[in-house]
Amino acid sequence: MRILVDMDGVIADFDTEFLQRWRHRHPDKFYVPVEQRTTFYVKDEYPEELKPLVAEILLESSFFRHMLPMPGAKEALEEMRAGGLEVFICTSPLTTYRNCVSEKYEWVEEYLGPAWVKQLILTKDKTLIKADFLIDDKPSITGAVVPPDWEHILYDRPYNRGPNKKRITWDNWRDILLAPSQV
Amino acid sequence: MRILVDMDGVIADFDTEFLQRWRHRHPDKFYVPVEQRTTFYVKDEYPEELKPLVAEILLESSFFRHMLPMPGAKEALEEMRAGGLEVFICTSPLTTYRNCVSEKYEWVEEYLGPAWVKQLILTKDKTLIKADFLIDDKPSITGAVVPPDWEHILYDRPYNRGPNKKRITWDNWRDILLAPSQV
Repeated sequence: MRILVDMDGVIADFDTEFLQRWRHRHPDKFYVPVEQRTTFYVKDEYPEELKPLVAEILLESSFFRHMLPMPGAKEALEEMRAGGLEVFICTSPLTTYRNCVSEKYEWVEEYLGPAWVKQLILTKDKTLIKADFLIDDKPSITGAVVPPDWEHILYDRPYNRGPNKKRITWDNWRDILLAPSQV
Repeated sequence: MRILVDMDGVIADFDTEFLQRWRHRHPDKFYVPVEQRTTFYVKDEYPEELKPLVAEILLESSFFRHMLPMPGAKEALEEMRAGGLEVFICTSPLTTYRNCVSEKYEWVEEYLGPAWVKQLILTKDKTLIKADFLIDDKPSITGAVVPPDWEHILYDRPYNRGPNKKRITWDNWRDILLAPSQV
């Protein structure tokens, strides 16, 4: 069984990193606590006049490298591999790729370890990748391959709550992925 | 029809870039002209005591960004897209990924144009990608998916000559890819 695991918001805590920088840089400005987020893209949560300041943080050097791992993520990935699953980290870099691309590799090396670097796949179109499951926090994932090979399992986040898909967290992943119907 | 196109040695002239730097840096040392190369990995062509100097060049800043495009490559890619083919650039970064990863993005932006950046796929395992053809200069391409979805078409280079596979260059690609049996 081959599993693709997304990076931002799934194994790397994008939202906390953003909010910490935002609050520190702009302590008097409007902000949205992570638990109150309702849109997938953080910039969609902020009014027009603040969007350039949001982008400034996402694009700055060290943003992608300094995120903390999501609690339980590394342990889940290691347990999956130890159990014989093929696990790849599948992430779409920002279109403004400077900083983001190399920092994603640095992040994986630092937080997951050097052996995971070769499991990293960077692609704007995740439907091209052959796998059984994709664990991703983005509500809808489309691309050139319709339908994709994989089944999308939504990684549960405040901004993607809804009834429509299988939902997973690093607390319940065994029940979802290793349920008898999946093996 | 979806085509994956490799980068080094196929659309970017890796070997000339290496040899220029090698000859400039070590004018009195052993070297192998591109036309006399017989191994896929350039370091395999050099004696043990010179391998660290080879690696030094491949890993240094600007090596991947400064390669020139292979003649005809950009025109071929543009013509494929204009003809309705889905074209993705599929490349495996060095394990020592610093410089290499971000410079591959920069190279694509500079030499092919910003629209091609989102067609870029970085993966150590190309068998995971769903496509009809993979154009690559590496003689044997293996990975987790056996057999891969794609048919491997060998991009003709001095170091990969042999009778075993369909061979392509940016001069004859139309005959190979657009032959009646392929469409």
